[in-house]
Amino acid sequence: MSDRRTEILKAATRAIARRGVRGLRVGELAAEAGVSTSLIYYHFTDRAGLLRQTLEFISDRADHYTTDEDDPAPRSRDPRADLERVLLGELQDSTDVRENSTAWGELRATAVFEPSLREDLARTTHTWVHDIAELLARADPTGTAPAHAAAAERLTTLVEGLSVRWLSGSLPLDHARRLLRGAVETELRG
Amino acid sequence: MSDRRTEILKAATRAIARRGVRGLRVGELAAEAGVSTSLIYYHFTDRAGLLRQTLEFISDRADHYTTDEDDPAPRSRDPRADLERVLLGELQDSTDVRENSTAWGELRATAVFEPSLREDLARTTHTWVHDIAELLARADPTGTAPAHAAAAERLTTLVEGLSVRWLSGSLPLDHARRLLRGAVETELRG
Repeated sequence: MSDRRTEILKAATRAIARRGVRGLRVGELAAEAGVSTSLIYYHFTDRAGLLRQTLEFISDRADHYTTDEDDPAPRSRDPRADLERVLLGELQDSTDVRENSTAWGELRATAVFEPSLREDLARTTHTWVHDIAELLARADPTGTAPAHAAAAERLTTLVEGLSVRWLSGSLPLDHARRLLRGAVETELRG
Repeated sequence: MSDRRTEILKAATRAIARRGVRGLRVGELAAEAGVSTSLIYYHFTDRAGLLRQTLEFISDRADHYTTDEDDPAPRSRDPRADLERVLLGELQDSTDVRENSTAWGELRATAVFEPSLREDLARTTHTWVHDIAELLARADPTGTAPAHAAAAERLTTLVEGLSVRWLSGSLPLDHARRLLRGAVETELRG
C-alpha cells in the first residue's frame, strides 16, 4: 500500500471518528492528510469508494491490536485465553481502539441509510465472524461447526453492541469488558 | 399526552428512521406533522429536547409491540416464552418495528457524537435492562440477581447489535431471530 494512500485512510478514520461519516468532506480530508483532493479521487474514485476502503482499513487495523504483532494467528497453549484476548482487544481505552471502534460503529450505522456500503460491510463482518469461529473451535474442540459459527456471530455482535453502548456513555468500559468475559464463559459452558 | 405532541413525536421517529438524526430539520418535520415550527419549540424547547423526547417515545412504543396490549407485564405460565417473546418483538419485519429500531439505533449512534443525548439514552437503556432482568428472574428463579442483571445487559445489547446488523444488510432477519433464541437458551442453561 502506498504511503500516501495509507495516510489518506488514517485521516479518513480519524475524521469519521471525530465528526461522523456525514461530517466527512473530501476537501477537509485532503487538507488533513496533506494531499490534493484529486489524489483522493485518483486512489478511491469517489466518496463511496473511499468509505469502502476505510472500512477495510479499520478492519485490518483491528487485526493488529487484537492479535500478537509477531504471530497474527494466536496459537498459544491456552486457546480460550486467545479468544478472550482477541475479543477484549476491541474494548480498550486507547486512542487507536476508541478511534477504530467509533469509526466502525459509525460506518455500520450509516449503512442503514447508505446501501452502497452494505456489501463491503457484510463481507468484512463475515471475515471477522469466521476468525472468531476458528478460535472457538480451538477452545472447544468437541463442539460442532454450526454451534461455533452461531456463537461467533453472537459474540461479535455483542462486541459491536457493547462498543457503541460504551462510546455513547451508557456503559463504563470495565463493566463492558466484564460482560464480554461473562459471555465467553456462557458460550463455552455448553 | 396531547394529540399534537404525539403527532410531532411520530413524525420525528419516522423522519429519523428515513433520513437519520443529522438529516432531521425542524422546518421539514413541522411540515410533515402539519404543525408550525413554533409549536415544536413550544413543546420541546430546542432540537436536543425534541431528540430526547423522541427517544422516550420510541422506548414507550417498543413496550407496546413487545408486550401484550391487554396485559403490559406478561405473566403467563411460561415465563421463558414471555422472555423470548419480548426480546424477539424487537426483531420483526413490520413497519413499526423497523422504523422504531432504525430510529433507536440512529439515536444510539448519534449519542457517540452528541453528548446531550447520553443521559436520557443511559436512563432509557437502564429501564429496558431492568425489565428484562425481571423476566429472567421469573424464567430462572434459582439464579442470583447480579447474574440476571448481567444476562439482561448482554441480551439487550445483543438485540441492539443484531438489529443494526439486520438493518444494515449484514444479517437476514430470520437468522437474527435464530441467534437471539440461541442466546436466550445459552443464558438460561447456566
